[in-house]
Amino acid sequence: MTLSEQLAQYIADVRFDDIPQDVVQFTKLCIVDYYSSLLKGQEAEPVRMMEQVAQLIGGEQQATAVTGLKTSITNAAFINGGASHVIELDDIHKASIVHAATVIMPAAIAIAEWKNLSGKQLIEAIIVGYEVAFRVGETVTPSHYYYFHNTATCGTFGAAAAVAKLLDLSKEQIVQAFGSAGTQAAGLWEFIEDGAMSKQLHPGKAAMNGILSALLAQQGFTGATAILEGRRGFFEAMSDEYDVTRMTEKLGQQYKITENAFKVHASCRHTHAAMDLALELHKKVEKSGIDFIKSVEVGAYQVALDITDAKNPQTIYAAKFSMQFCVALALSGEGGFDAFNADTLQDPTIRKLMEKLTVSVDENINSQYPQEWGAKIQIHWQDGSSDVVQSRFPKGDPENALTDQDFINKFNSLVPLEEAHKEKIIHDLLHLETIQVQQLIRTLHPVEHISIV
Amino acid sequence: MTLSEQLAQYIADVRFDDIPQDVVQFTKLCIVDYYSSLLKGQEAEPVRMMEQVAQLIGGEQQATAVTGLKTSITNAAFINGGASHVIELDDIHKASIVHAATVIMPAAIAIAEWKNLSGKQLIEAIIVGYEVAFRVGETVTPSHYYYFHNTATCGTFGAAAAVAKLLDLSKEQIVQAFGSAGTQAAGLWEFIEDGAMSKQLHPGKAAMNGILSALLAQQGFTGATAILEGRRGFFEAMSDEYDVTRMTEKLGQQYKITENAFKVHASCRHTHAAMDLALELHKKVEKSGIDFIKSVEVGAYQVALDITDAKNPQTIYAAKFSMQFCVALALSGEGGFDAFNADTLQDPTIRKLMEKLTVSVDENINSQYPQEWGAKIQIHWQDGSSDVVQSRFPKGDPENALTDQDFINKFNSLVPLEEAHKEKIIHDLLHLETIQVQQLIRTLHPVEHISIV
Repeated sequence: MTLSEQLAQYIADVRFDDIPQDVVQFTKLCIVDYYSSLLKGQEAEPVRMMEQVAQLIGGEQQATAVTGLKTSITNAAFINGGASHVIELDDIHKASIVHAATVIMPAAIAIAEWKNLSGKQLIEAIIVGYEVAFRVGETVTPSHYYYFHNTATCGTFGAAAAVAKLLDLSKEQIVQAFGSAGTQAAGLWEFIEDGAMSKQLHPGKAAMNGILSALLAQQGFTGATAILEGRRGFFEAMSDEYDVTRMTEKLGQQYKITENAFKVHASCRHTHAAMDLALELHKKVEKSGIDFIKSVEVGAYQVALDITDAKNPQTIYAAKFSMQFCVALALSGEGGFDAFNADTLQDPTIRKLMEKLTVSVDENINSQYPQEWGAKIQIHWQDGSSDVVQSRFPKGDPENALTDQDFINKFNSLVPLEEAHKEKIIHDLLHLETIQVQQLIRTLHPVEHISIV
Repeated sequence: MTLSEQLAQYIADVRFDDIPQDVVQFTKLCIVDYYSSLLKGQEAEPVRMMEQVAQLIGGEQQATAVTGLKTSITNAAFINGGASHVIELDDIHKASIVHAATVIMPAAIAIAEWKNLSGKQLIEAIIVGYEVAFRVGETVTPSHYYYFHNTATCGTFGAAAAVAKLLDLSKEQIVQAFGSAGTQAAGLWEFIEDGAMSKQLHPGKAAMNGILSALLAQQGFTGATAILEGRRGFFEAMSDEYDVTRMTEKLGQQYKITENAFKVHASCRHTHAAMDLALELHKKVEKSGIDFIKSVEVGAYQVALDITDAKNPQTIYAAKFSMQFCVALALSGEGGFDAFNADTLQDPTIRKLMEKLTVSVDENINSQYPQEWGAKIQIHWQDGSSDVVQSRFPKGDPENALTDQDFINKFNSLVPLEEAHKEKIIHDLLHLETIQVQQLIRTLHPVEHISIV
């Protein structure tokens, strides 16, 4: 059997009733996290541009973009893929370096809305999509990642898998869908040199291409049966080294979605363990006043400091990549998306805190990287006493999991909607296995957008 | 300046009035050749499936698919990209290994129809699209070609260029369009192991992606400014070796579209020089009768025989890759698309001819490959006499150019429409610089497809 055939067999076998309750619960929280990013991202400039293009080409009113636009499943996935990635707070899987939500959820939710499927079916499909995307990503990481944006390339396979599950494709059709998905997989890192909007285009297009692949397969359209491992397939063409065992090891015996990690701070992931600790110290700082702080020592792993040792950031974006700024911000009690703004950027209190701060590599922490992305903070007070706090995993890693309430807090802090509206959305999401996806969509977009034809 | 910036400058500078008359004439013949393949390809199974998917997602009625469907520009390009490649008789550029028509024309014609542009503007855009696709392809050939289908990957840049020209994008926007095009460029050869339909998906998607790239750029959507030569760009990521000088050498001083080659026989290109010669010998064979043939020696270059030395093909597809079958077919006077069929496959006369045939490498011919794809045929008659014919370039190569009438004959032999209708289409195409593209579309599709909303 080719890898695609083994994946197809796995996908066909997944049944909601077999999925452990904690995995279902975790998947619902992944969806909550997706909507936190999506609903916050809808106003961003690249998303508006993607919506303009989608409106221009038009489409059947099958699914709902976050902007409220009723459009084709492919257009909705395109827009929502861009919108859920743009604030850079969406989920991340360390071993595959895949942001799965931003590709798989837009594709799966569009199909579930269109076909009036149940929340159970959506949960099944998302679990399947994550499994495939993570496995493809783990197989080709790290060599593929140097050139290619795994979220886009590996995500295309995941989106195709999720849509194939929702459309109840046969095993043969799923294999063909993977063939079409792999031969459309694209997304180069070159855009990062310009900070260009391709970052949003990638998940949008990957979600769209995943849908197209499954729709084509449903019509009987054929693709390569060994698109992953074949001589001229995805692995050989697009990575220098790859470990094919990652594709099938314990396939069907585990739920890789549970390895997913989440961001609670709106900054570079390498600052997060230290920010967790600084927030923990905030109460003491507030009580004593910052003048009582003599100095703050931040210990981290080498890679973190390679990227984030920046004493004097001058833009909001740069501030998110400054360990000094992020820790000072967190010591003053903040860390969320809105906390990185023009005011905090120049806030004299934060700047004063930054001056008291030194960063250095902590050898113990460094020796555990990359399995652990740890940090240590020692705060020295004016009276000669000090406090030390340490962490091995940033909050949101599986080993330092968010609570259900953490997800809800993140949602509430990010989503620009009325409280009552947010409560209804959270309620639907946390009871997703009991409702149809169209009900969730109606809750999200209570005013029907009537198109006058 | 980055390569994208140099290309953008070139594209902005091209003006119809500066283009030599013979290049305009040649471009019109390229378009005739495109329609030969497109109109014949519309009934093919993969094309019908692609149309089904396009219909399912829907779109504004902006452009016309070959099937008559009025749909969005992206959908029309998608369908027409598939349809114009499926009979494997579309144009080919040897140095870049790019089939340009099947990607650039569907994209450009859809935009020209939508925006009610002139034939002159379309000709300009097609010239620009070919120039870009050929140059990108030459730069990365041969290493890229091992894994990637140049027509799809390099074609995406060409389609973006053509559409950018038609939409009159600024130079800055064209650079951004290339950024989005390059980061969507995809298409793996793995499908060939299964003979899968990805061959049609590739040009359709490349045409669609070229359009999306230009539309996004028009909205201000940004991409990598050095997507071609950048450290994590297209060349580095997707080829082992590349010659960047091919991108800009004599850019703006030549018209690479004139290097385009065409197929008149519906078989592997490596059989074509020999088929030309066999067709030349056909009259003598017909006059003498095949029993008067004692033996036929076919000389070719090594690569041709590596691929086409097949004494006993059992399928129509295999027959197109059998030098023996193709030469015997041509000796009996045939070579076109319909000549490869179930009857000729088992025709006793052709099989008898094949038995008299030997193929071998001719060292003189072989030494000139790949600059020349030559052939030699020596026919020995029962009376001891013999005839020898030799060719350095298959008909349709620039060095053995088709006449205008050859293009018209190919069109007439392939296109399944009434004679009067074909005459009108040819008339429009040969006078394209005097009409609007919408007139051509009305000629192609005289009955309006009214959609009841």
